[in-house]
Amino acid sequence: MQEIRIGFGQINPVVGDFEHNSAQVLRQLEKADGKADLIVFGELALCGYPLGDLSYRTDIIEKTQIALKRLIDESKKFPDLTVVLGHVSMATQRKSNQSAFAIAHNSATVFSNGKVVGRYDKQRLPTYDVFDDWRNFVPGSQELIFEIKGKKVAVAICEDIWDSHSGQAERLEAAKVDLLVVPNGSPYTRTKPSERRFAARDFQRGFSIAYANLCGGQDELVFDGDSFLLEKSGEEVFRAPFSEGVFIDSRELEDVLDDDPARLFRALVVGLRDYCVKTGQTKIVLGLSGGIDSALSCALAAEAIGSENVLGVALPSRYSSDHSLEDAAAIAKAVGCEYRRIEIEGPHDSFESLLDLSDLAKENIQARIRAVILMGISNTEGRLLLSTGNKSEIAVGYSTIYGDAAGGFAPIKDLFKTDVWWLSRWYNEYKKQEIIPARSISKAPSAELRPGQVDQDSLPDYQLLDDVLKLLIEKSATVEEVVGLGFDRELVADIDERVRKAEWKRSQGAIGTKTTQLAFGSGRRVPITTRFGLL
Amino acid sequence: MQEIRIGFGQINPVVGDFEHNSAQVLRQLEKADGKADLIVFGELALCGYPLGDLSYRTDIIEKTQIALKRLIDESKKFPDLTVVLGHVSMATQRKSNQSAFAIAHNSATVFSNGKVVGRYDKQRLPTYDVFDDWRNFVPGSQELIFEIKGKKVAVAICEDIWDSHSGQAERLEAAKVDLLVVPNGSPYTRTKPSERRFAARDFQRGFSIAYANLCGGQDELVFDGDSFLLEKSGEEVFRAPFSEGVFIDSRELEDVLDDDPARLFRALVVGLRDYCVKTGQTKIVLGLSGGIDSALSCALAAEAIGSENVLGVALPSRYSSDHSLEDAAAIAKAVGCEYRRIEIEGPHDSFESLLDLSDLAKENIQARIRAVILMGISNTEGRLLLSTGNKSEIAVGYSTIYGDAAGGFAPIKDLFKTDVWWLSRWYNEYKKQEIIPARSISKAPSAELRPGQVDQDSLPDYQLLDDVLKLLIEKSATVEEVVGLGFDRELVADIDERVRKAEWKRSQGAIGTKTTQLAFGSGRRVPITTRFGLL
Repeated sequence: MQEIRIGFGQINPVVGDFEHNSAQVLRQLEKADGKADLIVFGELALCGYPLGDLSYRTDIIEKTQIALKRLIDESKKFPDLTVVLGHVSMATQRKSNQSAFAIAHNSATVFSNGKVVGRYDKQRLPTYDVFDDWRNFVPGSQELIFEIKGKKVAVAICEDIWDSHSGQAERLEAAKVDLLVVPNGSPYTRTKPSERRFAARDFQRGFSIAYANLCGGQDELVFDGDSFLLEKSGEEVFRAPFSEGVFIDSRELEDVLDDDPARLFRALVVGLRDYCVKTGQTKIVLGLSGGIDSALSCALAAEAIGSENVLGVALPSRYSSDHSLEDAAAIAKAVGCEYRRIEIEGPHDSFESLLDLSDLAKENIQARIRAVILMGISNTEGRLLLSTGNKSEIAVGYSTIYGDAAGGFAPIKDLFKTDVWWLSRWYNEYKKQEIIPARSISKAPSAELRPGQVDQDSLPDYQLLDDVLKLLIEKSATVEEVVGLGFDRELVADIDERVRKAEWKRSQGAIGTKTTQLAFGSGRRVPITTRFGLL
Repeated sequence: MQEIRIGFGQINPVVGDFEHNSAQVLRQLEKADGKADLIVFGELALCGYPLGDLSYRTDIIEKTQIALKRLIDESKKFPDLTVVLGHVSMATQRKSNQSAFAIAHNSATVFSNGKVVGRYDKQRLPTYDVFDDWRNFVPGSQELIFEIKGKKVAVAICEDIWDSHSGQAERLEAAKVDLLVVPNGSPYTRTKPSERRFAARDFQRGFSIAYANLCGGQDELVFDGDSFLLEKSGEEVFRAPFSEGVFIDSRELEDVLDDDPARLFRALVVGLRDYCVKTGQTKIVLGLSGGIDSALSCALAAEAIGSENVLGVALPSRYSSDHSLEDAAAIAKAVGCEYRRIEIEGPHDSFESLLDLSDLAKENIQARIRAVILMGISNTEGRLLLSTGNKSEIAVGYSTIYGDAAGGFAPIKDLFKTDVWWLSRWYNEYKKQEIIPARSISKAPSAELRPGQVDQDSLPDYQLLDDVLKLLIEKSATVEEVVGLGFDRELVADIDERVRKAEWKRSQGAIGTKTTQLAFGSGRRVPITTRFGLL
């Protein structure tokens, strides 16, 4: 094995931007030339992943093929380099109507010096969590085995190696494969690094594994690089960082730990940055309440697109406290972004004179007035509005739809409140500076929509709430099961009911970066209309 | 065959409400007793369909089993009746990790006189359009064949019979099956009646088919009954109406036509009604602009929950015309709902004095002020807010997010503008009265957000727009393909780009009733972030 030098091309494709993606591939080929014998890119690196139902369109398949042909041609410039590149390809045999519209394979082509060595089509098509591969693709059934320097090399794609009992591992073992190269579209979660290695080792049958991932954000997913090389023994001998670029097996190991706050923070920055960059947005606006959620979001925005492109707006009402306004100004100053203050009393008073509102409606209307102002700024100045809600409040519906829930992207929607505190503390330590105001971290959270209000008037203690939510959501636990772990029945039933009743709000929520095993969004698909659990 | 008398139990289950669903089943058994030998209910009738990821929860499976056992016990009261009832059941063998979380089968149990005859598990699990069955269920592999009156009867579930080449039809033929009973969860679309019969006849191999469907709304889907019986020859000898109830084969045929406006109108009413009923909402509020969309929505609301529970609010701005206010008042009067008029000048002026807005932002802010007022009423009075946008404007993003797009349900979101006109004209003819004001139908559509504005300042002629949209969306056609049909290239490319750029707005849109082959919602899953087609 030692004699095949492997390069990992961690590129950041944009769905459907073949010029951009091809240029990235080419740049990595140039960099790897002479240093590697084999370079492997992530899953569908040439067209972007996930494609969703765009995979049904013949034109995206045709354009991918044109881009692929060009790159194969360009590979003559690097005659000693073998390339493994992911892309869609037209299936010759349609599968049955279990996936009636799928016409394409999720493929990887191996090519070298202007010639195609072979094509592999992904066999295992996941449909759990955020994945819709079985909907969107036709499965392959053939192995692809080729030789480099007298060694047998095979290809598998992502999910293929997450089932060690599918028969594929045994087929590769029987064929005496030395090295398995695996293009992946493996989204970041806080526990993913160890899961990837566990899956890969479980799949090993006497062959090495070169695991290559994408690197960048695509809607709610962030691909975090972390490509690695396992020896036949299962020993990890190389891992790539959470960065774009080509990484050649140098037998170097950087520590990649589960639940590393630096990695989590980077995922949030990359998710927000790439949503902006890839949709052509260069400026951000967000409301600054003086609370921890908007403070952390502001810091993320500044890291993502530069503080000079970020505008924080304080929108005080008659119920806003002085310390909130001080803390709002403080975070803006600390990150160095533009800051404005707009009093909402005018429209607040104006709506109140028009309408006879209930107490709850009186609270909501303030959040909605703020959204009208922020969207006015967004439309006028071409700024992306961030919604700064956290996972705990989104879970139980402790937010105002068309109010604080408004925005094109919700950077911390998959962070529980307790994790917002944890990550904010880490960030200040990491920056060796109080960027997030200490008081925003320490004070009792409040929406400040009525005099003296704090979140805990309406919600359980956040630590308790988050503990229960993690069980109900990520573990699909039943109320009985959570109670069985020692939690109060009334508390658990109440939280469970709130989660269900907020489904309609979540169905209209902004997308945001997935960081956990189960994020609200495409990875969790439940009916809005249900009486289950309420009876 | 003549001697097996078949009943079709078209019930309207609520997801997870076992008491409600069991009571409905029992009522139909009582009604069918003595009149039918066999009664067949729709797919997952006992627990509701679709369940989404609730199918991962052990408690919903356990509670379904308890409800099923009770009904089997109750069936002793009807010893001569054989029942085929759909429900989830725990799979003993998990399938591979292509669907890592699925633990349940999508089943139907046959029982009679207190005893189980057998259980059938759905074999073909669709993943196209709105369906996620392969994600949520473990497939079955065994046929179930039993005897009634000396005839061989088999069971298949929904998608099973939509593939005549799966081998199942041949297995049933080889077993000399006389009658195939098929519980379905078949959602309404305007072309569904003929498609169902086409599929069923294609699947026939010398056996009759008793096709039973659910009847009612569930989130974005409406099940429209339409159960039917095909003789071995393929001749249709009975069909059930679009109504809840038990229908016994009486060799009677009511015409069920594709694209019947009465059926479409009923689907829209049932979708809205059941969203209200099943989520416990009894009152509706909507904005009345004087235009056709809000007028038709108002008529639908009155039909769905009674005009006395509907509130229409006219929200004139400085740009509103007299005729708009007259038409808004006219539709409220014609349907007999409550009507209010609230001028938005106060908050409008107030926001304008706070903000320096671009021309577009000046338009959007009016729509958002209206949403703040309507949501204030919604929160205060416990009324469901309807969003009254049509498919044409949702497709090209000709709407204001957090403005006119705000609402818990969007009853006409899957009607193109030209179909809104068509259906409104039909409704007036059907009612033999001008319910929808003639001027709302005939006048040039306008958002009235600036002086003299009409939709066609910004959009192509609606007939042309809708023709192109139907190709781009429902046929997944490429720009080239649409141009090839004779449409102007610049026009098509412009519409295609608008559709793509509105993806982020649609991702935050309210749910609404599916009426076409491809509705915006869970049936269409495309990335927000993509440059495909823009290059």
